Order: sequence, then structure tokens, then C-alpha cells
Amino acid sequence: MAIVLLSGGLDSATCLALARREGFACVALSLRYGQRHAVELDAARAIATAAGVEHVVLDIDLATVGGSALTDAIEVPKHEDVADVAADIPVTYVPARNTVFLSLGLALAEVRGARDLFIGVNALDYSGYPDCRPAFLEAFQRLADLATRAGVDAAARGERWMTVHAPLLTLTKAEIVRLGAELGVDHAATVSCYDPAPDGACGRCDACLLRRRGFAEAGLVDPTRYAGEDPWATS
Amino acid sequence: MAIVLLSGGLDSATCLALARREGFACVALSLRYGQRHAVELDAARAIATAAGVEHVVLDIDLATVGGSALTDAIEVPKHEDVADVAADIPVTYVPARNTVFLSLGLALAEVRGARDLFIGVNALDYSGYPDCRPAFLEAFQRLADLATRAGVDAAARGERWMTVHAPLLTLTKAEIVRLGAELGVDHAATVSCYDPAPDGACGRCDACLLRRRGFAEAGLVDPTRYAGEDPWATS
Repeated sequence: MAIVLLSGGLDSATCLALARREGFACVALSLRYGQRHAVELDAARAIATAAGVEHVVLDIDLATVGGSALTDAIEVPKHEDVADVAADIPVTYVPARNTVFLSLGLALAEVRGARDLFIGVNALDYSGYPDCRPAFLEAFQRLADLATRAGVDAAARGERWMTVHAPLLTLTKAEIVRLGAELGVDHAATVSCYDPAPDGACGRCDACLLRRRGFAEAGLVDPTRYAGEDPWATS
Repeated sequence: MAIVLLSGGLDSATCLALARREGFACVALSLRYGQRHAVELDAARAIATAAGVEHVVLDIDLATVGGSALTDAIEVPKHEDVADVAADIPVTYVPARNTVFLSLGLALAEVRGARDLFIGVNALDYSGYPDCRPAFLEAFQRLADLATRAGVDAAARGERWMTVHAPLLTLTKAEIVRLGAELGVDHAATVSCYDPAPDGACGRCDACLLRRRGFAEAGLVDPTRYAGEDPWATS
């Protein structure tokens, strides 16, 4: 059995589809962490339901910690072009988010007897978040077996307990889009936007711009409805 | 500035007092994680207030993850004597608890600009939890600088960002009791019991038994009120 961290975005939905194709029985884990919009969680629920996997939603109030445009009343940066996506780590960075998210995945894995943990991070077409880098994942992998009862028990048998999988780590966004299409991911159900409006995704935050470029490079239509745009002209 | 993880128990209260004696401006962090009793959090609040430090309480629903007598309706084991405290990891173990707790400490440290993180874990008189061992703390220390923007920035300057302090790691419970007394910790404000009754601590869970032995060996009176015992005869 595998725990799959599922945010409701393109990457995590593709990651779930991959884990299933590899033959894992999956439990999807989402966090209700005080993100400013609930549409992401609705997407995660729809994706898990469509995949027929159990969906665990865990409440954690990261807004108490603060420090991110995704939980605080800080403005999400917008750009006209993907070339303007900042090389620096942006204000949408949630402090230690993936460490917290993976830790909770670890806890759930231990309780459910899972020995595999999937996270859809990506080190190429991403926003420069430190906790999406290979070195971070390796350090977490090392921590996992030391942190848990299951890890201690496995070590006593000379085994590794937990394997952290990040199968999208070195893919471009275009490759992720193509892979998702191949795996039957319902792209229309996924949400990438950091700052959605009632009538659709903003189209100008880092996540929207990277997504749009990914679909364009993959030669596929992005089924996302973007605010203020004709939904039949999004390609 | 330092973030101090504060559960409301003897160890974390002593840890906070130590951090303050070392000259750190401290922010105390407690988790409302679905523990079955709120008395622990009340204790943390009282300890932080008495120390005059800011107290951040973060909600996280670890009961959703399950798997522990501290969050689920699993019976807390009781013994007549401290010698019966199991060598195995007991059901009071909360899966990946310290990993989750430290991750959140890391997030708060980054937002507040703290570069020191204190945790009152102890590898001698403890309940055999895997995430109280030195190897675990070293692995977390290594992860911390890789996991955060502040860590990346510090590395670019050739510096270490975060120092994880576990100053009680190799102390006996008696030494922690004595140290606390020396530092002016109000032992009466601390709560150790895993299963408190309305009229006091149970006196027979692992935490109570280890605490009582610690006070006895330190030659100090444990001011805890134990259920069903005459509060004036607790020594």
C-alpha cells in the first residue's frame, strides 16, 4: 500500500495515477491547511473519487504560522508572461510545507501499514521552492526510517521501511501533461491556480503560467477555465 | 530568537527555562493535536505565561491519522511499578509526532527569523519512542537547512541556518527534575500524565511512573496531585 500526497493540482493527480499504474493500492492524503481557497481541496476530492481511492483530509492550521501568500492576506504575484516567473523563491512559498506534508504522510503510512509514500514534486518547471529539490527528498528519506516505530522494526530485520517516491522530479511540465493524458488523468478536474476567481483560474500567477506553457508545449488543450476568457478559446 | 516546543510536560518546561537561561528570546509552540485531554495545553499556556514568552498554539488534527492511545479510544497502559514500563514502544506512541512537531517548529522559525529550535526529548528515562533518539535528531538537523528558504539563503552565504537543540537528551529524569528546580521551573504547573482523571494524574501510566521515580531519585517532592491520593502525602 502507498500513501499519495494529493493537493488537487496537475502534478499530484498525475503522481496518483502513476502510483496506481505501478500496482499500488493507494490512500490519498490532502491537507486543509488554511489555504485561501477551498477549490483545491474540492479538486483533490474529485480526483480521489474518480480514481476510486480512499481520501483522507487532515486539518492543520498553517495560517497560525503565517508567512505565505497562500495562507495570509499577501498578494499573489501576477505576470503577463511565464518568462517573468521569478527565479527567487516567491511569496507563495509556504514555510516548510513539504516537510510538514511528508511528515503527516509518514504518520499515516505507519498507521496504515504503507511502506511507500508518493509526492508529486518537480524540480524543473517549478517555482524554486527549496523543498522540491532532490537533496531535500534524500534527507527526508533518511529521516523516515529513524522517525518511526515501523522504521525501527524494519531496521531490526535489516530492511528499509519507507521509500519516498517523487516520480515527477525531473520531468518538464509538458512531460507531466503528456504523461497524465496517457494515464487517463482528468486534467479538467485538476486545479493549479494560486489565486482563483469565482469565474475561473487567474491565468497569471506562477502556477497558471507554468501550467499553460506545459499544455502548449505538450500540444494539448488546457481544459482549465480562466477568468475573463472565453472557455472555448483557451488553447 | 529561538522556537521552543512546549507540550506542557516536565521536560519541555525545563527545556524552555534552559533556552531562556542561555539568553534566547523565545517563542513557545504547542500543538492542539487531538490529544484526549486539554489539561496539557492549559499547562503549556500557564508555563509560557509565567515565563513571559509568546505562546503559539497550532491546531492539527492528528486524530484523523489515528494509531495512538493519546488520540484514539485506545486504553493507556497502567502499571503498579516503574520497572514494568515496557521496553517496547507503547501504544501511547503518536506516529511521527516529533517529526511533525519539529517540522512545524521549523516553519514558525522561518517565519519569525529564529535560527534555533529547542525540543525537550530525552533518550534515557523515556518510553522508547524512536523519535527521541540522537540519530533521529541528527537526521532532522540535516533536513532543516535543505527544507527551507532560510536554509537555502544561509547555505549560499556558507552558513548553517538552523540549530536543533535537545539539551535534555542524555539526562536522567532525576537530573531533569533537579535542573528544573535550579532554573525555577514551577513543577506544579507541569503535566506528565497520559490519562488524567478529573481529580488528578493517574499515577500509573508510563509518564507518571517515570516522573515519580525522577522526583524520588532527585530527593524532591513531586507537587503533582495524583487521583485518589491525599495531596499532602504525595512524596
